[in-house]
Amino acid sequence: MRNLKLILAYDGTDFAGWQVQPGRATIQGALASAIGRLTGENVLPQGSGRTDSGVHALAQVASFRTASVIPTENWALALNHILPAAIRVLEVAEVADDFHPRKSARAKTYRYRIHRGTVCSPFDARYVWHFPYQLDETAMIVAAEAVAGEHDFTSFTAVDPERVERMAGTSDGAKRNAPSHVSSNLPSIFPSDPPSNVRTILSSAWRRDGDELIYTVGGNGFLHHMVRNLVGTFILLGKGTLNQGDFERILAARNRSAAGPTAPASGLFLVSVEY
Amino acid sequence: MRNLKLILAYDGTDFAGWQVQPGRATIQGALASAIGRLTGENVLPQGSGRTDSGVHALAQVASFRTASVIPTENWALALNHILPAAIRVLEVAEVADDFHPRKSARAKTYRYRIHRGTVCSPFDARYVWHFPYQLDETAMIVAAEAVAGEHDFTSFTAVDPERVERMAGTSDGAKRNAPSHVSSNLPSIFPSDPPSNVRTILSSAWRRDGDELIYTVGGNGFLHHMVRNLVGTFILLGKGTLNQGDFERILAARNRSAAGPTAPASGLFLVSVEY
Repeated sequence: MRNLKLILAYDGTDFAGWQVQPGRATIQGALASAIGRLTGENVLPQGSGRTDSGVHALAQVASFRTASVIPTENWALALNHILPAAIRVLEVAEVADDFHPRKSARAKTYRYRIHRGTVCSPFDARYVWHFPYQLDETAMIVAAEAVAGEHDFTSFTAVDPERVERMAGTSDGAKRNAPSHVSSNLPSIFPSDPPSNVRTILSSAWRRDGDELIYTVGGNGFLHHMVRNLVGTFILLGKGTLNQGDFERILAARNRSAAGPTAPASGLFLVSVEY
Repeated sequence: MRNLKLILAYDGTDFAGWQVQPGRATIQGALASAIGRLTGENVLPQGSGRTDSGVHALAQVASFRTASVIPTENWALALNHILPAAIRVLEVAEVADDFHPRKSARAKTYRYRIHRGTVCSPFDARYVWHFPYQLDETAMIVAAEAVAGEHDFTSFTAVDPERVERMAGTSDGAKRNAPSHVSSNLPSIFPSDPPSNVRTILSSAWRRDGDELIYTVGGNGFLHHMVRNLVGTFILLGKGTLNQGDFERILAARNRSAAGPTAPASGLFLVSVEY
């Protein structure tokens, strides 16, 4: 069995995200089906991470194992022949058996595009958040700088129902219900031990490019909705609803309800995954 | 009643063309519905011409009459608030009562984009014809030059069933069935007199822009499918199926069956309308 690594670009607008779901068009599902048509094998390619419904990728990384004898250099053309034009395989390479697109990843880079013009071209509309209103962009630029470094990003993660349950051991609500001898200050010994929300952000910056205000953020990992929640909160600084002190308090609060709303999926791109 | 002229951009991918059709999403229908919601008036805006299903516009021109008191400068924002993001009103101006977007037009410019790279980005796929195969681009460039000037473009017009019927008075088949005293060389006196297929092309040129081969053509009018049929025929020259002599014979033949196939709608843009 060979382990093949794919680099993929996709326009996520018309897909229900990366992860396969019955009866819905997904990137992982389309890819699995294309591989199945080529090889007759029933494989589910693994990605570097899930992208949500409507989120795009310039270079998502995926891998799968195959017994097919199709030469590595023919895979991209063959898959692109089957896949919808909204998903393109840019590169295929054979990698070591222990390569895993998520577990082996050292860092990822995301980009978020905000269109600041009064009118957003119909040819850009699928790929930006159109926000033509007044913004103090300098306040947003300064706030972005505070994100760099190691932080607990709980304030910027999605409040997933299943995740809340898994995290019950350390949530305020759970403490009230937990036996009194369980202290949330001690390292938990329970299997429900919550995954850490600490991530290291290597770069975090806004820049202007014509009518667009573009946020680029690179880090060793990202929580669910983290980039979109950061952007939604930066917007509150831009509007003057929050100031820099508020932003730093929100980052320190480790409390999702402290931060701003989730920015729309259309503006978000997974730019690259580093190994 | 004011006569308002609109300049519109649209991504035609998800529309069944300009012209309103029951039960289908069209540009004219979406615009009529947005105007209706704003003013309560039941108007059908007229365009400079119909664009087909999947064809895009950078600056289509339309107009409609309204008794609404909404100031001219507020219309674009108000309509854009209602219209889908794939249609944008770029400009609204009050024009003289006798302005008609089609009848008043002096010239139009179209563009056709062919993507020549091996892989076409998912972010370009809706806006190009992806044609990665071998082409003699020089042969196409030379052929495009032959299109400039005044010609009868019958060879490059769509074979519309209703149109064939209307043109029966001059077709070969009709001559066989027509009374012997009717000569197709004399100006016809019948109400079924076919419209002229003579058009003047002001500019016709291919150019390379990175991975794209782009055809731009301007003229005083265009027949149905004319640009896409020209492009489909240029491709046959690029492939070597036809040569320059063939191309000139096809142009002179006034016979649709002589030319190449219709190029896909995705690559075609209405660029501008001149008044």
